[in-house]
Amino acid sequence: MADSLQRALDYAHNHQVQFLNELMSFLSIPSISTDPSRKPEMLQAAQWCTSQLQGLGFTNVEILPTSGHPVVYAEYLQAGTRAPTILIYGHYDVQPAEPLELWQSDPFTPEQRGQNLYARGASDMKGQVIATLKAVESILKTSSLPVNIKYLLEGEEEIGSPSLGEFLQNNKSRFAADLALNPDAGMVAQDIPTIVYTLRGLAYFELRVYGPGHDLHSGVFGGVVHNPAIALAELIAGMHDSHGRITLPGFYDSVRPLDPEERTELARLPMTEEYYKGQTGASVLYGEAGFTPAERIGARPTLDVNGLYSGFIGEGSKTVIPSWAMAKISMRLVPDQNPDQVHQQLLAYLEQKAPATIRWELLKMAGGPACSTNRHQPGVEALRKALQSAWGVEPVFKREGGSVPVVGQMQEILKVDSVLTGFGLPDDNLHAPNEKLHLPTWFKGIDSLIYFLFNMLEVK
Amino acid sequence: MADSLQRALDYAHNHQVQFLNELMSFLSIPSISTDPSRKPEMLQAAQWCTSQLQGLGFTNVEILPTSGHPVVYAEYLQAGTRAPTILIYGHYDVQPAEPLELWQSDPFTPEQRGQNLYARGASDMKGQVIATLKAVESILKTSSLPVNIKYLLEGEEEIGSPSLGEFLQNNKSRFAADLALNPDAGMVAQDIPTIVYTLRGLAYFELRVYGPGHDLHSGVFGGVVHNPAIALAELIAGMHDSHGRITLPGFYDSVRPLDPEERTELARLPMTEEYYKGQTGASVLYGEAGFTPAERIGARPTLDVNGLYSGFIGEGSKTVIPSWAMAKISMRLVPDQNPDQVHQQLLAYLEQKAPATIRWELLKMAGGPACSTNRHQPGVEALRKALQSAWGVEPVFKREGGSVPVVGQMQEILKVDSVLTGFGLPDDNLHAPNEKLHLPTWFKGIDSLIYFLFNMLEVK
Repeated sequence: MADSLQRALDYAHNHQVQFLNELMSFLSIPSISTDPSRKPEMLQAAQWCTSQLQGLGFTNVEILPTSGHPVVYAEYLQAGTRAPTILIYGHYDVQPAEPLELWQSDPFTPEQRGQNLYARGASDMKGQVIATLKAVESILKTSSLPVNIKYLLEGEEEIGSPSLGEFLQNNKSRFAADLALNPDAGMVAQDIPTIVYTLRGLAYFELRVYGPGHDLHSGVFGGVVHNPAIALAELIAGMHDSHGRITLPGFYDSVRPLDPEERTELARLPMTEEYYKGQTGASVLYGEAGFTPAERIGARPTLDVNGLYSGFIGEGSKTVIPSWAMAKISMRLVPDQNPDQVHQQLLAYLEQKAPATIRWELLKMAGGPACSTNRHQPGVEALRKALQSAWGVEPVFKREGGSVPVVGQMQEILKVDSVLTGFGLPDDNLHAPNEKLHLPTWFKGIDSLIYFLFNMLEVK
Repeated sequence: MADSLQRALDYAHNHQVQFLNELMSFLSIPSISTDPSRKPEMLQAAQWCTSQLQGLGFTNVEILPTSGHPVVYAEYLQAGTRAPTILIYGHYDVQPAEPLELWQSDPFTPEQRGQNLYARGASDMKGQVIATLKAVESILKTSSLPVNIKYLLEGEEEIGSPSLGEFLQNNKSRFAADLALNPDAGMVAQDIPTIVYTLRGLAYFELRVYGPGHDLHSGVFGGVVHNPAIALAELIAGMHDSHGRITLPGFYDSVRPLDPEERTELARLPMTEEYYKGQTGASVLYGEAGFTPAERIGARPTLDVNGLYSGFIGEGSKTVIPSWAMAKISMRLVPDQNPDQVHQQLLAYLEQKAPATIRWELLKMAGGPACSTNRHQPGVEALRKALQSAWGVEPVFKREGGSVPVVGQMQEILKVDSVLTGFGLPDDNLHAPNEKLHLPTWFKGIDSLIYFLFNMLEVK
């Protein structure tokens, strides 16, 4: 095995230019899942994946319909029934690129500047998908795969995977596997390979507040109607108390407390106040009193306003009382919170607090519970060793603040646990202008995946 | 005089179709002063006015430059130095038409439905400007003008008349007059002609709140930064107390209290709670405790949010912590408040309340003080009689909630008092979709202006 491993690593090192070109080709497809007008590009991205998988010799390569964007499936089962089967998860969709004017180069024309490649999706997560394909290619071109592999590439991760649960329910047997590899998590720093064992969940809503029946002149009618933008601001302002705690009734009831051992572990992460100031550009941090930044992100729920709109937002001034106002509001959840319970808690808050002078409407959008993986299972151990081999340092174990609904769904529906890793860096500008991928880290990531696939032989 | 008067009225009645066609031609010009891309249409609207005035035989018809949009000037001084000189004020600019999708017909393609004409600016105030021109025409075509007339038509009323003060300072002698007629106020109801003797002032601001240096992923960073949309909501929510009173430090210090006689008079207006519910479509009214709706609009200052923006406001969901948030905030002022003082009060509030976790910036936009006109001056009496003649009922005297900066500027700079009236109705959808003008009322308005011009003979 040592020989095959070395040949695969050599292949990867000798084909970096080709790998990069293929990544740039994938990144040039604007596969924005939230934008209904981008359906053709979504399909184009799915087809790009199937053509790669077919080229590698995968079988049953298919674009499977869901109630939303389709799933790409492919399998390579030649390692035999005694070898373990790994389900590699990825998503081929990306976030919208707005605000476009803040990008230094076009988000869908990948541009290398220094050691980074800039494009929407470079880090989240087209780069990570390609890393797995190129690790597999490096092995297949030089020996044979020591494990069986199935691919599941979805097209709705960035909109909360609304169709995936039903899809997995309807395709349970197809996705039977010993372990899922999910490279949609990132590294805590450039020299610190990272394994994520906890993910926060998500509950996303749109709150609309309606005031007068139509826009009004603020002089003629200012003083007799409740301004819906002000009423919305009052509702939002009431959602946190002065200690940064969320005030929705019962919100913390099912939050699993941090035990002292975990707090000690989290304190060892390099993510200090100074670190987060550097990453965010905020000169003063903010958050729930009584917890460190790493605890607040990893182990505590949060509530954010993701968007806000009312009235006249163009250049200049317009003296209008808007007829309505809107906020996109989402919560990051921790074990054992549940998005449906949070929905009820938000409804209860609004029923208690919304004044009779306005009407409101709450739309429930994407959501999924938090999840937690056992750190001591063999697949996690195979990944720990692989990362150690590629970087020469022990990886850290981390609680992740983001949400990957599929991890929970695979646990619940397929009974398949996920190993989470990834080669994105904290300053990759995920979901923001100038998203980038650090190429030396990415190439090291491909190496580590080659190690991982060989290590997996020992698992079963 | 009775004979000339009757001939002028007859002319007006016999030329209604022509008057309407000319109004529709004026309304088809999208002269939106707040939109920098509409400069050509602004000039086109100004030229439309000069060609009308030239056609009536006015002299010194000019488009005078200001630091913003130009002013249309024209004079007709053949009544001689013994006759009074009336300065007729109007504005040829209109509000933006957004949201366009709520218009039943194109805002700049005037459409008559039933007794109403629908178009942006139909009521505010191109219709009113044309009413004055057609009253003048009706007299000039049938006899001679009993008074001297000067026209001042500005192009920046809808953006708060930022250039007009300086312009009037530089052109004081040109605008010397005995009285200004300002038809930019409306009627309280279809059968109740109205004279406005008080106008609220305006102070308009844009508040920007800055959080992280760029948009952040709400999973990766939710819990360590203050969300600027939430911080903005908290600042806005704090601007009113639970009694609907504005909390800016010192805000009510220079508000002139209502005397018992005025409260009695205001109570006689037909503007009840039910009236305002009908006009606004709000099922429950809102406002400062201790005052009636008519008092809150006419005699009490208010604070409104006119626009609100942050983050992602498109379709679907985006899990972003926005890097900034913005609110357009404006106050309607009453005597003896001053926009500069209010600016200082808002700054003081923000300095006290804004948390260290965000940065903020306050842009001062349009503004002007409130003003009040003596109800017993002869020009007001001439107008009262004219409205009585046209409608057959006594007009009401009203405090107006809206702001007409030029009225204050004419008082302060030109020492010319204004008589305020107008033929718009409360349901004309000013500044809103489906703005309209009630045509039978408009024609009656032209009659009343003919009466007024003859009545003015008795003034000097």
